[in-house]
Amino acid sequence: MASQILRRTLGSRYFANHRPFSSVSTPIRATLFPGDGIGPEIADSVKQIFQAAEAPIEWEEHYVGTEVDPRTQSFLTWESLESVRRNKVGLKGPMATPIGKGHRSLNLTLRKELNLYANVRPCYSLSGYKTRYDNVDLVTIRENTEGEYSGLEHQVVRGVVESIKIITRQASTRVAEYAFHYAKAHGRKRVSAIHKANIMQKTDGLFLKCCREVAEKYPDIKYEEVVIDNCCMMLVKNPALFDVLVMPNLYGDIISDLCAGLIGGLGLTPSINIGGGGIALAEAVHGSAPDIAGKNLANPTALLLSSVSMLRHLDLHDNADRIQNAILNTIAEGKYRTADLGGISKTTEFTKAIIDHL
Amino acid sequence: MASQILRRTLGSRYFANHRPFSSVSTPIRATLFPGDGIGPEIADSVKQIFQAAEAPIEWEEHYVGTEVDPRTQSFLTWESLESVRRNKVGLKGPMATPIGKGHRSLNLTLRKELNLYANVRPCYSLSGYKTRYDNVDLVTIRENTEGEYSGLEHQVVRGVVESIKIITRQASTRVAEYAFHYAKAHGRKRVSAIHKANIMQKTDGLFLKCCREVAEKYPDIKYEEVVIDNCCMMLVKNPALFDVLVMPNLYGDIISDLCAGLIGGLGLTPSINIGGGGIALAEAVHGSAPDIAGKNLANPTALLLSSVSMLRHLDLHDNADRIQNAILNTIAEGKYRTADLGGISKTTEFTKAIIDHL
Ligand SMILES: CC(C)[C@H](C(=O)O)[C@@H](O)C(=O)O
Ligand SMILES: CC(C)[C@H](C(=O)O)[C@@H](O)C(=O)O
Repeated sequence: MASQILRRTLGSRYFANHRPFSSVSTPIRATLFPGDGIGPEIADSVKQIFQAAEAPIEWEEHYVGTEVDPRTQSFLTWESLESVRRNKVGLKGPMATPIGKGHRSLNLTLRKELNLYANVRPCYSLSGYKTRYDNVDLVTIRENTEGEYSGLEHQVVRGVVESIKIITRQASTRVAEYAFHYAKAHGRKRVSAIHKANIMQKTDGLFLKCCREVAEKYPDIKYEEVVIDNCCMMLVKNPALFDVLVMPNLYGDIISDLCAGLIGGLGLTPSINIGGGGIALAEAVHGSAPDIAGKNLANPTALLLSSVSMLRHLDLHDNADRIQNAILNTIAEGKYRTADLGGISKTTEFTKAIIDHL
Repeated sequence: MASQILRRTLGSRYFANHRPFSSVSTPIRATLFPGDGIGPEIADSVKQIFQAAEAPIEWEEHYVGTEVDPRTQSFLTWESLESVRRNKVGLKGPMATPIGKGHRSLNLTLRKELNLYANVRPCYSLSGYKTRYDNVDLVTIRENTEGEYSGLEHQVVRGVVESIKIITRQASTRVAEYAFHYAKAHGRKRVSAIHKANIMQKTDGLFLKCCREVAEKYPDIKYEEVVIDNCCMMLVKNPALFDVLVMPNLYGDIISDLCAGLIGGLGLTPSINIGGGGIALAEAVHGSAPDIAGKNLANPTALLLSSVSMLRHLDLHDNADRIQNAILNTIAEGKYRTADLGGISKTTEFTKAIIDHL
């Protein structure tokens, strides 16, 4: 069963372009932000499973501070950011940004400071967890630094406000290149650029232009352009139409959540951010669920699958396969499930079940 | 069965606030834009059904021109627009905007010139046409004049372009007022304002502020705010969570298409635009399908249901009920279906079946 699941969800795609076995002797240091709310519990789950699976990772834990660090303008300390810069790889739990204290959002601080330019979210139907869709197997790649997230906004006159969407050739080309590189490395056949260039001809038009230029260098990968409204309609009608999707920031925000909904929600989808200088920060994108924090009720799946993405990024495919299979098999078996998936298992019970499946 | 379907999809909501029976003796003039591609065929279907149902509408037909009218900067003539302004009500088939001739899009010209500030799309599961969802019954209300559609775009420096999203107090309040008015008139219980104010605090923030102000005047209608990414996830997980949704232009574009996808696509969803001075222009929002144009293969359902919305706007509820029931019963029966719904019926056969169900 393990190998069957592996084949269906990964195919041989994860193995292209990589060394077949990692024979790392010294452990790799990775930054771990447990985050807040349920963060520490689900991070514990990852740590236990990594230990049981003998994944060669040495965690360097960093916590969200309780005061604004003037160097980052947020509750994230400069030292935390330095840790990711040094290790070049990290895993992040949910971080709730406290409201209204004149500082930057934690997530946006990480994206900005680490130049996390591509947010990658594989999204596939989980055998054993039934939704209306059983044929989802796609990856959304979101430009993560500009677009509608420029922060440029102002009041023009009373009652008239504007916000500015910025698209640059540099960022568009960079994320397009990552998307095609990813598609090739993972044996994916098609890249769809999502846009609204029929209305935003200059901004989305430039984004498409960059995608087209990159597409020409990958003649073996089919390239298409899909208008965002139509894309959302197609996704809910038949998600199997899509393979890899690449898009500007806000469209990526919307479509990646829509896709997560198709397979059960943010509690089940991994995410990894690719940054400048080879940095990669994997993260669970769901919230910190303060209502159930500390109650041993949280579902660690999204953070676990994100940690698997982190291992793959490090070319540690044997470890990644082993852990991913144990997770997917535990879910497929259906005996241990946390409350969000309709079960009654505690976080620790679910974690133990995964360890038993290793 | 007729009354059962009527109850399920309309409830008693369409009757609130309206005179119980329309006893119109002189027909009402309405502008009809058959549009192009399949437009004339599906407009014929509407005309035949209206005649058979003795709906008191006298159509004034206008065609899309073959040359740019300098007064409208588009292929729509000034006279066409004048017709809608005079009649205050119209129905529009699909219009394909010819590309690259230095003129305005036909749809955008209509929105702009007629000040069509709210696009209203009821979206409900059709009994007899099965999709993954059987519990959709919501209405999207889209601000239709500003936001990301301002047309303001420019290159800042080489490789850096920006587009400007405009949100005004006036347009936001107007569409919010329409949404609450609609909810009340149709017996709907909840209005959800869709936004991304966590990122676009000024623009979407102003939109929300206006919605909140209007909400206070409707204490019987529940008001909530939902972030667009989360909204899309919730919609695909459980669309029954939503009732009336109101939102800025681009979000409305995206979400209304997503919702159409839930129940089968744009070929099945009605749409009506509310404009300044009491104007209403109902329209089929699907494309003009030039590949099947003239072949008697088109599905007229979206235009037909839009014409029903037009009748309701005119308070002609007995006519609207009769026609809507005939359409829904024909689809529910499943004997006559056009190719897009997996059937083999010609447009004219499907039309005749509806007439037989009147
Ligand atoms: C919390 C919010 C600012 C963030 C975003 O919009 O990017 C979130 O939705 C995400 O996708 O990570
Ligand atoms: C054709 C396009 C300009 C239009 C829009 O974006 O508004 C369409 O998608 C719609 O929803 O009517």
